[in-house]
Amino acid sequence: MILTVTLNTALDLTYKVPALVPHSSHRVTEVTERPGGKGLNVARVLAALGHETVVTGFAGGPTGAVLRSMLADLPVREALVPVAGNTRRTIAVADATTGDTTQLNEPGPTVTADEWAAFLTSYETLLQGADAVALCGSLPPGIHVGAYAELIRRARAAGVPALLDTSGEPLRRGIAARPDLIKPNADELARLTGSREPLRATRDARRRGAHSVVSSLGADGIIAATPDGIWQAPPPVKVRGNPTGAGDSAVAGILSGLVESLPWPDRLARAVALATATVLAPAAGEYVTASYEALLPEVKVTAAEHAA
Amino acid sequence: MILTVTLNTALDLTYKVPALVPHSSHRVTEVTERPGGKGLNVARVLAALGHETVVTGFAGGPTGAVLRSMLADLPVREALVPVAGNTRRTIAVADATTGDTTQLNEPGPTVTADEWAAFLTSYETLLQGADAVALCGSLPPGIHVGAYAELIRRARAAGVPALLDTSGEPLRRGIAARPDLIKPNADELARLTGSREPLRATRDARRRGAHSVVSSLGADGIIAATPDGIWQAPPPVKVRGNPTGAGDSAVAGILSGLVESLPWPDRLARAVALATATVLAPAAGEYVTASYEALLPEVKVTAAEHAA
Repeated sequence: MILTVTLNTALDLTYKVPALVPHSSHRVTEVTERPGGKGLNVARVLAALGHETVVTGFAGGPTGAVLRSMLADLPVREALVPVAGNTRRTIAVADATTGDTTQLNEPGPTVTADEWAAFLTSYETLLQGADAVALCGSLPPGIHVGAYAELIRRARAAGVPALLDTSGEPLRRGIAARPDLIKPNADELARLTGSREPLRATRDARRRGAHSVVSSLGADGIIAATPDGIWQAPPPVKVRGNPTGAGDSAVAGILSGLVESLPWPDRLARAVALATATVLAPAAGEYVTASYEALLPEVKVTAAEHAA
Repeated sequence: MILTVTLNTALDLTYKVPALVPHSSHRVTEVTERPGGKGLNVARVLAALGHETVVTGFAGGPTGAVLRSMLADLPVREALVPVAGNTRRTIAVADATTGDTTQLNEPGPTVTADEWAAFLTSYETLLQGADAVALCGSLPPGIHVGAYAELIRRARAAGVPALLDTSGEPLRRGIAARPDLIKPNADELARLTGSREPLRATRDARRRGAHSVVSSLGADGIIAATPDGIWQAPPPVKVRGNPTGAGDSAVAGILSGLVESLPWPDRLARAVALATATVLAPAAGEYVTASYEALLPEVKVTAAEHAA
């Protein structure tokens, strides 16, 4: 089983409007709701790849109840820990005229010390059955900034490989706990290392404590620095579309490959094909199986140099 | 008992953001939720004035459940009719830099013919105990545009005075059913009559079928054209603040005065004092009792001319 942790789950709303004009009133023409938070996206893709998947994190209030009822319809097991606060909403206002999106993210419920303790107890139990764990996304209010470092240490004590996909100070603190994998995007990598030169920054991120670093660079594909070597894998085709969730699909590709003991180049090919198929899908964060299967054999993974 | 009808109830969310920048991502710093829809605002003020008040309309889905639980905390009786769809949300994005607000309104659930029939049955029963009814706000999808005309005819058949506060085609159709009162604002009045000259437009609106017309003109106060005469009542003081809900407070003032059989000038004084006290209140749609009581004796109602 693969465990994904989303401490700041969300109900993701998309509002279509003819045109967003600040300081005016808008009739929303279409509303869509889906379960949100990076770890939930990763779990959805893992399940589609045929992996038994469990999602944990927090859910509470009326929004949390909606989120749970939506997860019940998906082929993932839900082990979210209740909180007294209301799970956050995120709103993507999609402007039909420009095609651009304006994002409004609620902060999320404040998690109490007791709720965090209940989560840790549940997490320890879930780790017993896990082949790998993905720790994903931002921290809700009330959770200490070293929370991911704590979850990584507990995973290591349980012998479970841990992947960390977050940003800012939680990423910095998490790396110090030596996770098996981090998956920064270009901006996170630059903030972490101070360098915008992807190969150099990926190797530098690895030196800070992560066993392996897989950097997702959008249209430039992926660079991975691992104990087995350094690889680059650009997308097999140039694509246009909605990149939302492409990084989460890449995480699912890498994690599934790790659990299946695939060699690194195969894990990276899977990550790039899944991310590309996600950009191509009409709905944000979904991927089309046929696109993924067609793209997978086309991904070229090349060794950038030998083990760092 | 005074009955207020809100066919398109809402959960009103306010998001504070440091500055709204289209096509970028925002952390919402503060989220507030309150029951929304004009008829609910009117009911809240009526209850604060000491009137027994019942709210009806539709509520459904998770958002409807939140709305109902919030109404349970208010001194109004809730008789909302269930619908299968999800009650709409409205989002006011408050820009902390400019002080301006950007409004995003979901369309609301589509009401089926069976749900409308269930509402009419409940409405007939509620009318039996009502001294007056206020019909407020927009129509949700699925409700025919002549719905308010139908509700007005049924109120008249039950001997219950009906006030209509809506806009556009539902207002135009509603007036043809000869409601006791309409309360257009300046924009609605202009759309209805084609005139931006308030006194002329108010008299014209009356000729179209409403027994009385009370036009709420923001900083210019109120003009009323009634069978007893025509009056003007400017606010007693110039105020700055949030005008949200001021028109709904005016409706509550007029309706409470009608039920208490106050002469027209006293009803209008109450409406103007309540609307002004609402603009002064820190929270949108609330009013401060002390402000209302201080303002009420200061409102000057003057006869514009004798009965039209």
